[in-house]
Amino acid sequence: MSLPIEGFAPTVEEIRGARDRLLPVIRALPLLRTTHTDRDLRLKAESLQPMGSFKVRAGVTAAELAARQGATRLVTASAGNFAQGLAFGARVHGLEVHVHVPDTAARSKLDAIRMLGARLIEHPFDEWWAIMQSRDVGSAAGEAVGVFVHPVSDEPVLLGNSTIGLEIGEEWPEVDVVVAPFGGGGLAVGIAAALRALGSSAEVVTSEVETSAALAAALDAGKPVAIDRRPSFVDGIGSTRVLDEMWPLITRSISRSIVTTVDECAEAVRELALAHKIVVEGAGASAFAAANRPEFAGARVAVVLSGSNIDRSVLAEILGTAGER
Amino acid sequence: MSLPIEGFAPTVEEIRGARDRLLPVIRALPLLRTTHTDRDLRLKAESLQPMGSFKVRAGVTAAELAARQGATRLVTASAGNFAQGLAFGARVHGLEVHVHVPDTAARSKLDAIRMLGARLIEHPFDEWWAIMQSRDVGSAAGEAVGVFVHPVSDEPVLLGNSTIGLEIGEEWPEVDVVVAPFGGGGLAVGIAAALRALGSSAEVVTSEVETSAALAAALDAGKPVAIDRRPSFVDGIGSTRVLDEMWPLITRSISRSIVTTVDECAEAVRELALAHKIVVEGAGASAFAAANRPEFAGARVAVVLSGSNIDRSVLAEILGTAGER
Repeated sequence: MSLPIEGFAPTVEEIRGARDRLLPVIRALPLLRTTHTDRDLRLKAESLQPMGSFKVRAGVTAAELAARQGATRLVTASAGNFAQGLAFGARVHGLEVHVHVPDTAARSKLDAIRMLGARLIEHPFDEWWAIMQSRDVGSAAGEAVGVFVHPVSDEPVLLGNSTIGLEIGEEWPEVDVVVAPFGGGGLAVGIAAALRALGSSAEVVTSEVETSAALAAALDAGKPVAIDRRPSFVDGIGSTRVLDEMWPLITRSISRSIVTTVDECAEAVRELALAHKIVVEGAGASAFAAANRPEFAGARVAVVLSGSNIDRSVLAEILGTAGER
Repeated sequence: MSLPIEGFAPTVEEIRGARDRLLPVIRALPLLRTTHTDRDLRLKAESLQPMGSFKVRAGVTAAELAARQGATRLVTASAGNFAQGLAFGARVHGLEVHVHVPDTAARSKLDAIRMLGARLIEHPFDEWWAIMQSRDVGSAAGEAVGVFVHPVSDEPVLLGNSTIGLEIGEEWPEVDVVVAPFGGGGLAVGIAAALRALGSSAEVVTSEVETSAALAAALDAGKPVAIDRRPSFVDGIGSTRVLDEMWPLITRSISRSIVTTVDECAEAVRELALAHKIVVEGAGASAFAAANRPEFAGARVAVVLSGSNIDRSVLAEILGTAGER
């Protein structure tokens, strides 16, 4: 059920259409200007979207299209946030949804998916990753499959993500740099497509975390390469290898990838909660940490805070540790 | 410098004018619909405003008027949030600002006021409260005073607060109840004035905390009465007595006051952070707690989350304690 993504280049009208279909279910939040630094850094707080992440946009967009095409069941492989978005979309459009999850996923995310009425199927990380690459869940599920929606490399998913770039570019045409966390690349690629469609020359930069920086490794090697992935509290991004099918889109969309440390991400979670008053998970915090690197001083930077699904205990521990502020 | 507040009844046009003057400095956030309960409860997240509270509206409105009238220095007595709003407004309009604070105020708030360039003068709580009532700071400051801006009972302050009611009523004309925390009454009175000006019949309800419920005591007694005020982490609201000058406005604006417990406020802080992903201080949390009382089931309720200035250690402690969710 893979859709042809290589030529993904939606028009402004197509992206506006997708955004209009999303408006009844998403929050229309302006960029949040930060007032605690002398930088012009503005927050795209997708962490405040329903289900706690930007993935509601892709999930609802994909579910809407599948429902229009007569599907009754959606299937996905997701570490959590996308599954919540898709489950939410499935609910809005009256579809069943099966979610294949890695056993490394945060409990809070699995509970949230379950509460939306999705059926969960757990796998060891490597087996789950194989499903994500093959899109083959037939044997694992042991029953007839539905429409597989890939969390990254599906055209409706990229189109849903592109609505974020549209909103940033329309609200802030002068933006120089958009920093978005890198999971599979779908977020950054979608945003870049929208900025291109708008005629913006803004640079799209991704953030990764040191424990799973597959894109930085791929950019160094000139092609996707396998890396070791270590667990950390930054569980919403990172993989063991950039998807081959995304590579051409990535190389023409993303200029560079900033590798943040786990400590930087924790400090960013703390600062976003204490100074900016929003709760963000490690992935979104990594983009904020990257955007605060010296290389972006003086630039007009939009930061995509991708999600907010952080475990209570992790958040409490980070806030309980005195940081710089 | 007291202004005649008893007849406070701005027109929709006056409130819209005040809001237009605020728009360059405040965040235009929509009401945040909550998706975690079956209630129609929407959040007015003033906690996300610059300086972390709704008081930026009053502070900027008052500073703008004073600057227009040729003042060079503003003076106020405030527990923190209003002082931040006024200091911010003074900065925007190029004025000096002196702030008289009680020694019970949260350190985080005092630091934030200082960082805005205000001069702080600390007093024991009772002495500070006397200044708030008399508006006399001449001897305490030991120098020529400026324009005293009362955090509650000044017309520009009430006008600034009324812009919140305007936004709620214009965005959600069907709203049945607006719940706002009660400090001195300025927030609720301002909101009620705007709803009245819009022709709305929405009820304005206040929330208090059990440790300093001066309004509930006054409503019981039929007039302002002195109460014991105990300290708690809910430090942004509550007083030892409702201000006499506010009483007539209060009785015609506020239908009832819900007294929340300190535990309910802590639980609300926790739920707002974990389920709704925003950091709110105890005062704002009390409104959320009140709005979730059984008596409002079935009603369309807007909750004013008044501020976000909570100490890191308090927030960490609340999040570190496992709650119901």
